[in-house]
Amino acid sequence: MKIKDIIPVALGEEKPDVLLKNAKLVNVFTGEIEETNIALFRKRIAGVGDYNEGKEVIDLEGKYVLPGFINAHLHIESSMLSPRQFAKAVLLRGTTTVIADPHEISNVLGLDGLEYMIKSTEGIPLNVYIAIPSAVPATNMEISGARLGPEDMVGFVDSYPNRIIALGEVMNFPGVINRDTELLTKIEILRHMYKKIDGHAPGVRGKELNAYIDAFIRSDHECTTKEEALEKISKGMQVFIREGTAAKNLDALIEAVNEMNHHSFSFCTDDREPLDILNEGDIDYLVRRSIDKGIDPIIAIRMATINTARYYNLRSMGAIAPGYKADIIVVDDLKKMDIRMVFKDSKLVVKDGKFVEDMKGIYNDLPKKFGKVILPEFSVDDLKIKNRGKKIRVIKIYEGSLLTDELIVEPKIENDYVVSDIERDIIKIAIFERHTGTNYSLGFVKGFGLKSGAVGSSIGHDSHNIGIIGTNDEDMYLAVKEIEKMNGGMVVVNNGKVLAKLPLPIAGLMTDKELEDVVKDLEFLEEKLKELGAVDATFMTLSFLQLAVIPSLKITNNGLVDVNKQEYVDLFLD
Amino acid sequence: MKIKDIIPVALGEEKPDVLLKNAKLVNVFTGEIEETNIALFRKRIAGVGDYNEGKEVIDLEGKYVLPGFINAHLHIESSMLSPRQFAKAVLLRGTTTVIADPHEISNVLGLDGLEYMIKSTEGIPLNVYIAIPSAVPATNMEISGARLGPEDMVGFVDSYPNRIIALGEVMNFPGVINRDTELLTKIEILRHMYKKIDGHAPGVRGKELNAYIDAFIRSDHECTTKEEALEKISKGMQVFIREGTAAKNLDALIEAVNEMNHHSFSFCTDDREPLDILNEGDIDYLVRRSIDKGIDPIIAIRMATINTARYYNLRSMGAIAPGYKADIIVVDDLKKMDIRMVFKDSKLVVKDGKFVEDMKGIYNDLPKKFGKVILPEFSVDDLKIKNRGKKIRVIKIYEGSLLTDELIVEPKIENDYVVSDIERDIIKIAIFERHTGTNYSLGFVKGFGLKSGAVGSSIGHDSHNIGIIGTNDEDMYLAVKEIEKMNGGMVVVNNGKVLAKLPLPIAGLMTDKELEDVVKDLEFLEEKLKELGAVDATFMTLSFLQLAVIPSLKITNNGLVDVNKQEYVDLFLD
Repeated sequence: MKIKDIIPVALGEEKPDVLLKNAKLVNVFTGEIEETNIALFRKRIAGVGDYNEGKEVIDLEGKYVLPGFINAHLHIESSMLSPRQFAKAVLLRGTTTVIADPHEISNVLGLDGLEYMIKSTEGIPLNVYIAIPSAVPATNMEISGARLGPEDMVGFVDSYPNRIIALGEVMNFPGVINRDTELLTKIEILRHMYKKIDGHAPGVRGKELNAYIDAFIRSDHECTTKEEALEKISKGMQVFIREGTAAKNLDALIEAVNEMNHHSFSFCTDDREPLDILNEGDIDYLVRRSIDKGIDPIIAIRMATINTARYYNLRSMGAIAPGYKADIIVVDDLKKMDIRMVFKDSKLVVKDGKFVEDMKGIYNDLPKKFGKVILPEFSVDDLKIKNRGKKIRVIKIYEGSLLTDELIVEPKIENDYVVSDIERDIIKIAIFERHTGTNYSLGFVKGFGLKSGAVGSSIGHDSHNIGIIGTNDEDMYLAVKEIEKMNGGMVVVNNGKVLAKLPLPIAGLMTDKELEDVVKDLEFLEEKLKELGAVDATFMTLSFLQLAVIPSLKITNNGLVDVNKQEYVDLFLD
Repeated sequence: MKIKDIIPVALGEEKPDVLLKNAKLVNVFTGEIEETNIALFRKRIAGVGDYNEGKEVIDLEGKYVLPGFINAHLHIESSMLSPRQFAKAVLLRGTTTVIADPHEISNVLGLDGLEYMIKSTEGIPLNVYIAIPSAVPATNMEISGARLGPEDMVGFVDSYPNRIIALGEVMNFPGVINRDTELLTKIEILRHMYKKIDGHAPGVRGKELNAYIDAFIRSDHECTTKEEALEKISKGMQVFIREGTAAKNLDALIEAVNEMNHHSFSFCTDDREPLDILNEGDIDYLVRRSIDKGIDPIIAIRMATINTARYYNLRSMGAIAPGYKADIIVVDDLKKMDIRMVFKDSKLVVKDGKFVEDMKGIYNDLPKKFGKVILPEFSVDDLKIKNRGKKIRVIKIYEGSLLTDELIVEPKIENDYVVSDIERDIIKIAIFERHTGTNYSLGFVKGFGLKSGAVGSSIGHDSHNIGIIGTNDEDMYLAVKEIEKMNGGMVVVNNGKVLAKLPLPIAGLMTDKELEDVVKDLEFLEEKLKELGAVDATFMTLSFLQLAVIPSLKITNNGLVDVNKQEYVDLFLD
């Protein structure tokens, strides 16, 4: 926007595009509520005050007007929605800006994945800023689809200087402390380009925290206690209070927030699954819950808007003021925080819980390298495991936890092959490298409760190889072949039949379906899982079984991993 | 500083350069006081907490430790001190960072003046950021030494990207409202380079304020009432509370500040004369005075530190935290705010009111183009004014005000020449264009009280031509010739003798003398002025008589100016 075009509108010499009349403006600067009118011009707020005309006039009848919410950190992939579907879903909840770390798609597609995220969010009515993932691949214990080195980052940031806002959560805490050259190079590059360096430092305190922050890492979304949050803000970090699907920290952290320190707090969702977005919401949920916990609505709104804008140096966002972006929420009640309208770039996109903007014409190609699933060559018989010892290592999972244990048990043998043992709830697991089809691995897992059939998914943190659990090889084979056919997705099969599935054709992680449809599909998958006896959150648990940074025993496409030792271990023991 | 070098220090594996023990750290993030130790390494704070060793250990014995103060807006030239002498003067007061708008020297020397300010502040123990002046020349009614166009700015910012932080106060409010192309070009250039656009909008409110802010002008230091300040912050401006020598707004504005809105306030001095810096101080004075007025010391300290750092996006300043610059103040008492020590880049530069850092080796050349005074050709007789009418226009000045009135009076005639009339306190004034020696102008002024002799100065806002007032032509001639000899400065003469003078060889605006010596010289000048009968603040009033933007009648090198009409007017009327 050119300054010379907006000035006559501000002066009242020309009509604004939209006039919002009778607004109760929530002023994040003063902390007060102002009864006023707001003139919008092109994508900006031209003025606040005594304006009475507009090309379009909307009478807000005394409703509250807030800046659009900002989600300080999330992975869009966790919503399983394509960026444009995700945008629709969260715009309904008043989120108008997100800082997305495309960690998952980058592990599958590298720079092509990043480019897809950027291209598919151009021109949509949601500001999507990219935190470039700092750890692709996350470990060396598996084969991922890509590697993002410092040399990749330089050129990429240079290509999209205004879209890339940060180096994504620096998870490799030991890498910082031990001055890993490649990691520090990434940080040095991004900070010298005046990008933020975002953190991820669960439980890091004291001198180690000082050292971590000395690496210019100035945010964290992994606090779990009030004390940890207070130490982190005291050392200059912006603490993103996270309320995701698995990790929920709001209730513990909100206790730390007060009038004098609240500028150091922001809100984020990190990983939110479709059902939670549909039922609870996005940042609006965190605002509402904070207010329920006794936080002044103004402070809660600041944490959802201006605080995050300031942290990321988004200089015209997070407030309703002249020259600021016209990203605006209208609510009836500051406590209920019920989103009645959402304006994005002056345009009404949400009204009474309905998305009223046309999304046609928005870029919706698949990623360049498409994310085609490439499986290694194998037959059903290749899934058999010849007995080679007296005992086997079994991964013990716990419902609702990412932690696992190693169990040493006697295998169940049939015809000299080790097979699933439904009685003991020990079933087979297979991980198929799906980026280049290099290899696959086999093992056993206890705790899923599956009595029959097989379950599979192309979501498998962080390299997203295909994970299949099953009671028999035929169903496991069918499951992985079905995922290959869908080019990624989730599937439940039994007795040679596909019972339920959700194709995830975008890198095997996302779909372009609507949120409601995805939730329906997921609920149907859950229903079928239940019928087969599986525990709650089977897909979620399965998706983290490859993540060889969370103790104790995990399995990647390369085989079983003793996480604490960071070593491969054999299935068999004597 | 490289990250990999500081991490071992933070971890406690290597000794910090300096350890500050037993500190009461004022934490601007939490708003609390922490008893702790602080480890400094190179120019940064490595860590806060349980550190017990250091190459140098300083026991603070429970004193308070604050981040160094930041002066949000000032003109170093007003101190009459060279940048390095200015640095010494304000470091004694705990200021470690300033945002300087070299408006005055730029009007004399243009880019050479800017370059001088940048070069002469490199390597000194004060962070000097430059706001590039937006209005050089300030008006077209006089001849200045230079013009700074948008085309000059582009290259200059490109040459010093890390030193130039903003476009200096946009004073030309009508230019914004009327969309002056050159001015908007300057703004568009700087904002697209992610620089701040600083404002100067006395009394601008309502729609005009909206329009002004729509030009991305996000700060203002000209508020005079609480209501004006509250409107400006509500519209997203950072309000710099100013307490200068002439303009003092703190008492009025501090009433606007509260717990919920104080982040939108900063402190600045704008124009502070040597005597005030010596007697009252710099930002420390504003902090102290705010606390006296009932402001919580933590809030006052925030306004002097982190708030300003955030506004200017100085990402490692304004706080004491890991990775932040080791610019630190030590005080005994948070109310008295007595500066006991100042550390700049981890180095102790001030101790017990004494500057202990060696300033030798610091760049101290004169500006490239030197600022040589070039006078037009003239003799004493050329200062005579032949009578041409029945009445003359006289500039009426008021003690302590920049406003003037036009008086129409009968002239005093001697031998058909109009001469000074001491009885009626109407004396002659002459303005000599001193940059290229083009011309000079003559007029009369009432109110200075001068009974004998002449007074002259090369400080004359904003083009800084030489202004001389006098009771007789011989002394006026001597005064201007003396200033020419000094290559700029201030002078009092009587009966053919120079009574007192202060050479200002740096562009006719500044000297490299110490603050105390300059104050002595100024006091001596004042003493001599008094002896000749002149009113208080004669030099200050004289220095603003050329500023043809402040009503009503002014005089530039081109002649008398009717400010309201922006027209030249003749001395004589019928």
